[in-house]
Amino acid sequence: MATDSIGVSRPRTDSEPKVRGATRYAADLPVHGLLHARLVLAADAHARIARIDTEAALAVPGVVAVLTAADLPIVATGAQRSAQPLAREEIVFAGQPVAMVVAETDAAATDGVDEVIVETEPLPAAVDLEAAMAPGAPLARATRPEEDAGEGMGGAHASVAGGEEAVDEELSENVVSRQRLRHGDAAAALAGSDAVVSARFRTSWIHQGYLEPQIATAWLEPDGELVVSSSTQGAFMTRADLADLFGLPHDRVRIRPAPLGGAFGGKLMIPEPLAAAATLRLRRPVRLALTRIEDFAASNPAPGQIVELEAGATREGKLTAVRGRVVVDRGAFEDFAIEQISALLAAGPYNWAAHDLGAYGVLTNRVGGGAYRAPGAPPAAFAIESLIDELAERLGLDPIELRLANVVREGDPGLDGQPVPVIGAAECLERLRDHPLWARRGELPDGEGVGVAIAYWPGGLEPAAATCRLDADGGVTVITGAVDMSGTETVFATIAAASFGVPQERVRVVAGDTSTTAFAGISGGSKVTYTVGRAVERAAAAARERLLSVAAEELEIAPEDLELVDGVVRPVGTPSRALKVSELARKVLSFGSAYAPVEGYSGVAQTSRAPGAAAHLSRVRVDRETGAVVPLEHVIAQDVGRALNPALVEGQLMGGTAQGLGWALHEALVHDEDGQLRTGSFVEYGPPSASDVPPIQTEIVEVPAPDGPFGAKGVGEPPVIAVAAAVANAISAATGARVRELPMTAERVWRALP
Amino acid sequence: MATDSIGVSRPRTDSEPKVRGATRYAADLPVHGLLHARLVLAADAHARIARIDTEAALAVPGVVAVLTAADLPIVATGAQRSAQPLAREEIVFAGQPVAMVVAETDAAATDGVDEVIVETEPLPAAVDLEAAMAPGAPLARATRPEEDAGEGMGGAHASVAGGEEAVDEELSENVVSRQRLRHGDAAAALAGSDAVVSARFRTSWIHQGYLEPQIATAWLEPDGELVVSSSTQGAFMTRADLADLFGLPHDRVRIRPAPLGGAFGGKLMIPEPLAAAATLRLRRPVRLALTRIEDFAASNPAPGQIVELEAGATREGKLTAVRGRVVVDRGAFEDFAIEQISALLAAGPYNWAAHDLGAYGVLTNRVGGGAYRAPGAPPAAFAIESLIDELAERLGLDPIELRLANVVREGDPGLDGQPVPVIGAAECLERLRDHPLWARRGELPDGEGVGVAIAYWPGGLEPAAATCRLDADGGVTVITGAVDMSGTETVFATIAAASFGVPQERVRVVAGDTSTTAFAGISGGSKVTYTVGRAVERAAAAARERLLSVAAEELEIAPEDLELVDGVVRPVGTPSRALKVSELARKVLSFGSAYAPVEGYSGVAQTSRAPGAAAHLSRVRVDRETGAVVPLEHVIAQDVGRALNPALVEGQLMGGTAQGLGWALHEALVHDEDGQLRTGSFVEYGPPSASDVPPIQTEIVEVPAPDGPFGAKGVGEPPVIAVAAAVANAISAATGARVRELPMTAERVWRALP
Repeated sequence: MATDSIGVSRPRTDSEPKVRGATRYAADLPVHGLLHARLVLAADAHARIARIDTEAALAVPGVVAVLTAADLPIVATGAQRSAQPLAREEIVFAGQPVAMVVAETDAAATDGVDEVIVETEPLPAAVDLEAAMAPGAPLARATRPEEDAGEGMGGAHASVAGGEEAVDEELSENVVSRQRLRHGDAAAALAGSDAVVSARFRTSWIHQGYLEPQIATAWLEPDGELVVSSSTQGAFMTRADLADLFGLPHDRVRIRPAPLGGAFGGKLMIPEPLAAAATLRLRRPVRLALTRIEDFAASNPAPGQIVELEAGATREGKLTAVRGRVVVDRGAFEDFAIEQISALLAAGPYNWAAHDLGAYGVLTNRVGGGAYRAPGAPPAAFAIESLIDELAERLGLDPIELRLANVVREGDPGLDGQPVPVIGAAECLERLRDHPLWARRGELPDGEGVGVAIAYWPGGLEPAAATCRLDADGGVTVITGAVDMSGTETVFATIAAASFGVPQERVRVVAGDTSTTAFAGISGGSKVTYTVGRAVERAAAAARERLLSVAAEELEIAPEDLELVDGVVRPVGTPSRALKVSELARKVLSFGSAYAPVEGYSGVAQTSRAPGAAAHLSRVRVDRETGAVVPLEHVIAQDVGRALNPALVEGQLMGGTAQGLGWALHEALVHDEDGQLRTGSFVEYGPPSASDVPPIQTEIVEVPAPDGPFGAKGVGEPPVIAVAAAVANAISAATGARVRELPMTAERVWRALP
Repeated sequence: MATDSIGVSRPRTDSEPKVRGATRYAADLPVHGLLHARLVLAADAHARIARIDTEAALAVPGVVAVLTAADLPIVATGAQRSAQPLAREEIVFAGQPVAMVVAETDAAATDGVDEVIVETEPLPAAVDLEAAMAPGAPLARATRPEEDAGEGMGGAHASVAGGEEAVDEELSENVVSRQRLRHGDAAAALAGSDAVVSARFRTSWIHQGYLEPQIATAWLEPDGELVVSSSTQGAFMTRADLADLFGLPHDRVRIRPAPLGGAFGGKLMIPEPLAAAATLRLRRPVRLALTRIEDFAASNPAPGQIVELEAGATREGKLTAVRGRVVVDRGAFEDFAIEQISALLAAGPYNWAAHDLGAYGVLTNRVGGGAYRAPGAPPAAFAIESLIDELAERLGLDPIELRLANVVREGDPGLDGQPVPVIGAAECLERLRDHPLWARRGELPDGEGVGVAIAYWPGGLEPAAATCRLDADGGVTVITGAVDMSGTETVFATIAAASFGVPQERVRVVAGDTSTTAFAGISGGSKVTYTVGRAVERAAAAARERLLSVAAEELEIAPEDLELVDGVVRPVGTPSRALKVSELARKVLSFGSAYAPVEGYSGVAQTSRAPGAAAHLSRVRVDRETGAVVPLEHVIAQDVGRALNPALVEGQLMGGTAQGLGWALHEALVHDEDGQLRTGSFVEYGPPSASDVPPIQTEIVEVPAPDGPFGAKGVGEPPVIAVAAAVANAISAATGARVRELPMTAERVWRALP
């Protein structure tokens, strides 16, 4: 095994065509006879549909059909969002697709949309999260569809050990899920604490902000196979879900994933059901490409949350108990129980003597909540890491030392009842403690402060497989069914090169469509490298073994006495008897060859988690006159297991940090009290621009994951989690102000100033 | 292992879309911005190119480029045909592509072709095969390209144990290959024989007669990858050859095979180099679709042959020796040494005390010779089986009994020096001996006769691999890189169903392109089922094993105590504890699952041959006034190892027999003495129509191949081989006339009448 490729910074293989503008995204796929779909979006946040008048729309030249829910060939009847891509009898959020106009041109479809008349009978809306929970609140859904056997997105990003049901309170039927995770006697532990802090935190709905809006194109092959090409994070998941939706055998549906123009958790089954349903209905190719405003209004952003927490510690700095609840605005759909992950993470990466955490999922008349990079984690970290900081303040302890004294280490009992796996949380904190910025924090000008925060992410697990093939010219091809996300294919090449023992330049990674590749789970949950990468490592090793056995027969020497170096196989230390890999490959793949192809397959199921941890230092300046916060400097120390390609890892750390600054200071998807979206464009929504992001220093911490490929683990989600908490703590350090709501706008900061 | 699917007749999975006209052949692939190529074909059979004037062609509206040999980005310099898809300095056959006009429309390209002026200096042509061999004959190539290291098609259909060089005769330099296979003292053995017969046989150039002319479309992906979609028999071979041709890494070329509209050995690398070269040169998608006349003139039909043979036997009917030579008209290219296979097969499936067979390959100024269903075999069988019949006549022996007394059986020493593998040749003869038609042969009306003949085909070997995947709904997908030919995918489904243990309806077979599938060799050489099918069998078995191990964990019972029946896994004999395959599958492929995907991979290299044998009875009526021959009835008994899908096997037997009747009585690709093609359409070429083909009875003989999937072996090539010989023997039985030349036209028969 030649590990030369490991740890070397290399550009992503998809960078060059992207920079040249040559990459063909989903919208660039030419399809003959393509029809274009546009959506009629609901105006009301909650209403009954009285009538949909399609006559005028159908009269628009070029319009082929106007489809409503009843026209879609969907057989699944459950509550999951994908089974109701168009509103049935009831509109449950403003912006909900109510009808779909399909036309020969996009312009005709747009004209058709203007002519569709949706007559509604308004119903009282549940828009405010807290009000929606109260007994007697208007119900966000007058009629709730039956629960389906389907799994939905329940645990699709990180699974949570089951808690008990929390039934101690009378709540409205909008509260569709309540769970309680507890261990020990939290009340007693808090009562016996020397310091107890508590607060109530709110976070906004946040859109993933991908540059490419959601899009899907569907068509039928001559044999009736349904093909969907879309910007999706999960080819096989989309296949299974669409097949189940339409009652088709899975092998009659093929997903051709297109390069992602950003996704961050949001691109799973939003446009696909509609494009596919229209195609099945009309027997013609159909494309549905959301506009930016449609995407803001009707996709699946991260939900708003309320986190109420109480935390205690002893005088010596030993954490005692954490108690509270996490309330998540599910919006109009029930698919994704983010509150369960969020409640688990609200305890932070700490050892508590006791915990008692409630998790509440609440339906409202907003768009359905979805996954966004470490779903549920930034609000949880914002809360707990603010409180930990306050405890340090109260007890007069160094905030890093307090964290270090309590942070989880391998083997500690975890909140989920399992021993904590290998995790580098302490190492991340130590790295920050030793960082010059931390040392400088006492010498800053007035109005400046440095805050620290840490978070971890359990990481997802899903089966995966990969194949590895030696081509006749000595090149190595790795084939997976995983969608490339943030450079995972480039990392697969690194892994395969090291595992097979060839230069990385000779490795090509191909993502096939669902018809021809081995299974891979969704690209999300910080698990692509850890699961698919592991399969790649083993597949390449299997292929290498095959090659050595061929060389062994050719050289009449045992495989274990052979080495693979510099593109040749040779008896160890005997360069004169070397056989070129390319010559062996051609010999194997020739007519009449006595050798099976030099290929390897591996399917894996990781059963051990490899949680990631990321700690942040944020230096900010706060303008006391206006409350405006300017981030000046940011340091992130993250345990990545092993940085297979440091450049890509740094990119993840920086990108996550930038998005975390969006959570902290800028972004909010705002609905008014009637449930109308007020931020339907990037201008109004306001993500950070380049000038809003300070220099970010990355500190790569490597605590190898025992089961990761070459020790690597997922790195995508951890960096975003604790950014807002670090910024909040920095604001407090600068001003003494504790801001409890995200984003921390100038007004909110100003109001919080002491 | 549930073998319910084995031996059941089922329609081909591709039949229904083909019958509906829904199948998209290579010409149906929509490509945006496609350019169309048309060829300027040489008028002379042999000439030097003085000048190619492209000016007027370039002035035709829509013409984008006129490419000549020097414009093609080909780096390979060898003698292989693919390296010279356009004539370089020298034209070597009438019809040779000299230039390629590429235009925005096919019409513009056609107009452009008319405007290209090719000025030539004629050279003396070598058209007649025998004349070309004589010392001092005009050379078919004034300048011969250097030999390349590349392997070409040398052994691509059946490989031959090397003989010695035959150097006993002075011959012209057109004779590019001479080999001699000998064992024992043939001269002495013949001298000591009680009967010796000898004759000289001639066969015509024969076109494969596929309904879909050759076609290829090429384009570049955004990252520069060259993609070629064509009607090709070999995706991986085409990839390797194109990559080598243009000096590209193999992984920078991707072949997307289209459904074959017939091929029969002829569809390998004829249009692909041209379409690909034009695309690389012009950086735009280019399609080259040959017209019927271009395909007749410039593709790669089976070459004409001369077979001179002498064979002896003892009075008791023991064959003694066979001696002679096989001369193959290579046409203008040197790629494919058919004469070597043909010489080997000229001994027939018999045990000889001695043999001495020469093999001569001769260049002429005709189109290059290629592979057509059992290349070289029909001429060889025509010769030897005519002579065997004559020996029986001379010795007063029953022709089937004579054959049975001498036919090779397992373990006999083969001509190639190896023991003969398991072969059902004797069983085929016995089946015919017992057939009512053979019994009736003495009672036929005047002018009718029954002939018998037998042939075998060694079968090719090439590495292959396959993967098998259990989908989340319990469906099974088999993935190979093999091009479907005559229903091989349907057979893979049968094999996988039996090997995995699911109903065949739950199995789908997918052929991927070269970027994402495991390796498979060309579809040809009667080896797809034997090699790829074997890989499918093993891949499915591996997946089944994975499934049982999952079920074993779920049921807490050893895998060997489980059975897979009726879509469930259960402890043997305990239906109450059954787990549905679909439930297990969904459990395995879920988020957080502890199980690796239920998938299997297998790569195989068959090292044992599984030769096929096919024996024929032909009943014909000969009109003594005109010599016209009417086939009345045909019986074919073929050893197929195991008929996995008898309907498909029967289709092969009937199709091969029909094509054999074309060889026997109808087809000839005729060039006049100047080398000009005289049969450039199906009307002139004259393949048999439905009314020319008599009822064909198929007798499936099953002598299991030890290493074949469920005992199966290749069935494609054997049925065509001995048809002409059987018809010739029937003509002799009817009239006493021995016709020595194919096709046996009325005139030739009439002239041969005694």
